[in-house]
Amino acid sequence: MLREIREQPEVYRRILRDGWDPIRQTGEAIRQRTPRFVVLIARGTSDHAALYGKYLVETRLGLPAGLASPSSTTVYEASQRMEGVLLVAISQSGSSPDVVVPTEKARASGAVTVAITNDSRSALARSAEYHLSMLAGDELAVAATKTYTAELLVLFLLTETLAGRDASATARLPERAEAALALEGVIQDLAPHYASVDLMLATSRGYNLPTALEISLKLVEAAGIASFAFSGADLIHGPLAMIERGTPVILVVPDGPARVALRPVVEALEERRADVLLVGNVEEIFGHHAQLPILDLGAECLSPLLTILPLQLLALHLGLRRGHDPDHPAGLSKVTRTW
Amino acid sequence: MLREIREQPEVYRRILRDGWDPIRQTGEAIRQRTPRFVVLIARGTSDHAALYGKYLVETRLGLPAGLASPSSTTVYEASQRMEGVLLVAISQSGSSPDVVVPTEKARASGAVTVAITNDSRSALARSAEYHLSMLAGDELAVAATKTYTAELLVLFLLTETLAGRDASATARLPERAEAALALEGVIQDLAPHYASVDLMLATSRGYNLPTALEISLKLVEAAGIASFAFSGADLIHGPLAMIERGTPVILVVPDGPARVALRPVVEALEERRADVLLVGNVEEIFGHHAQLPILDLGAECLSPLLTILPLQLLALHLGLRRGHDPDHPAGLSKVTRTW
Repeated sequence: MLREIREQPEVYRRILRDGWDPIRQTGEAIRQRTPRFVVLIARGTSDHAALYGKYLVETRLGLPAGLASPSSTTVYEASQRMEGVLLVAISQSGSSPDVVVPTEKARASGAVTVAITNDSRSALARSAEYHLSMLAGDELAVAATKTYTAELLVLFLLTETLAGRDASATARLPERAEAALALEGVIQDLAPHYASVDLMLATSRGYNLPTALEISLKLVEAAGIASFAFSGADLIHGPLAMIERGTPVILVVPDGPARVALRPVVEALEERRADVLLVGNVEEIFGHHAQLPILDLGAECLSPLLTILPLQLLALHLGLRRGHDPDHPAGLSKVTRTW
Repeated sequence: MLREIREQPEVYRRILRDGWDPIRQTGEAIRQRTPRFVVLIARGTSDHAALYGKYLVETRLGLPAGLASPSSTTVYEASQRMEGVLLVAISQSGSSPDVVVPTEKARASGAVTVAITNDSRSALARSAEYHLSMLAGDELAVAATKTYTAELLVLFLLTETLAGRDASATARLPERAEAALALEGVIQDLAPHYASVDLMLATSRGYNLPTALEISLKLVEAAGIASFAFSGADLIHGPLAMIERGTPVILVVPDGPARVALRPVVEALEERRADVLLVGNVEEIFGHHAQLPILDLGAECLSPLLTILPLQLLALHLGLRRGHDPDHPAGLSKVTRTW
């Protein structure tokens, strides 16, 4: 897992060098077909990437979007009228039936389908009309890391192409990713603080809500910590009731509009004296326990490609500290074949 | 809260008696405009009802659907092209800006808009082209109960109308709801078992995933218990790692296709010796701690209108047992005005 975490700047470089042309060609071809609605389908970590893709579609492409519920197709065997729909299916292995079957069905029902996988020979790669490779190389750890960030970058490049933009802000991404991973020493120093926590929460809003969901899942998988994520807006609707003095909360505050929107969340956490790990650059707003600063790429929408990196390291080092084997979480397997 | 929970059979009767005609008229009018995609928007408890609505649209209406991310509009100030879209906005108070603003914007961008609220003079009721009332009467407890189930029933009747069906299976709903609430004695007996738990999980699949999400939120709000929900399919992708012997899990297994799909989840919980509270009628499949049987309405898609009822009582009685005031959870307010 540590090796795969450290490969991420190189995966970014590879996608920007070798992957961008195929993404641009596919994006241009899809653009000609003028999709009106975008449905994304995925499970687990890839579903967090799909949520990022949904924000991109809603905000940068200006189309309505939704995350498909696989069970509508696989459990209830329903079909939907899919003319005008672009279906984006995301899966590292490309082999989970609950992503493959809905993709086949959507294509048969008139959707334009594109699969993003890490295995171009997979069932999903073959079932969709278009296929984009993550170019992440083999991922062996059960807890996905480099394929998650590869999915984010492929989704960003695809959406920008669909919107007729050139995505030049990604140029400095690989070096900034290296800087984010250089926080490993800080993170190792933080690990003892969380060595015996029972529960951790994570929150953000907008583009970094997927970051909060993904770090929660990593903490569960790699460190066996009961960990959950909420949108900052939902947090105030109820889950705030379980936050008390000392409750460990990971708060992701990117530079950009979400920073303003997160202010009531920050105030609520401050008032309850939560034990906050702040991921972001703001310094004045919070009596936080610790901070992981993230270099700015000039666009909040790219920040999730950086904010997750030190948090993956946190999950790994907490797992090691707590005597877990992050590469082989008890009872989990790399590819799940749920229907 | 107890009074409002007990009113639910009567609210069902009122909607079926007084609400159905307006819903049918609105549904017929919307049907003439042949929406191609459905976007639902809500927050908190109403967002769980929206997820139920999404399943109905995908499975019973046969259209693609999505849950809107309010922050795309309110934080990032984006607009989407909304021609061909039916936007369904759901809010008890009808006053949360992060539902009102996206509804106004969607209407201006070409969507057919319908609001479901419990206050016909609210900003949301006025901002949408069509308005349907929940007819639930004033709801005073912070933890929403009767407005949640009213939302489910209004969404069911609306979707069936849009699909050109008559929803006659709802005839026995009020009496079955009374039977579900008659489990209160069993639930009071269960409360001591959970008196000191730190963490509870809830899971199901498909139509009852909203039930799992909603009972988790009620446990947080009314009893201050850290409680979280997962789709059974997602549970196996990772969160299973935090379930050990004795972890309290609420498992909702309706009669119907989800029962088969939940089998791997049941087996995984059994293997890990989780402490399972089973909501449903299956008896042979699990060495569960306790069971809340639910009378069948002949269609799994209606089961969420019953399965949540005894669980609301569970949240209330756990709250009382643990010394909480379910009517006034610390730090929460009835109407949240997040953007």
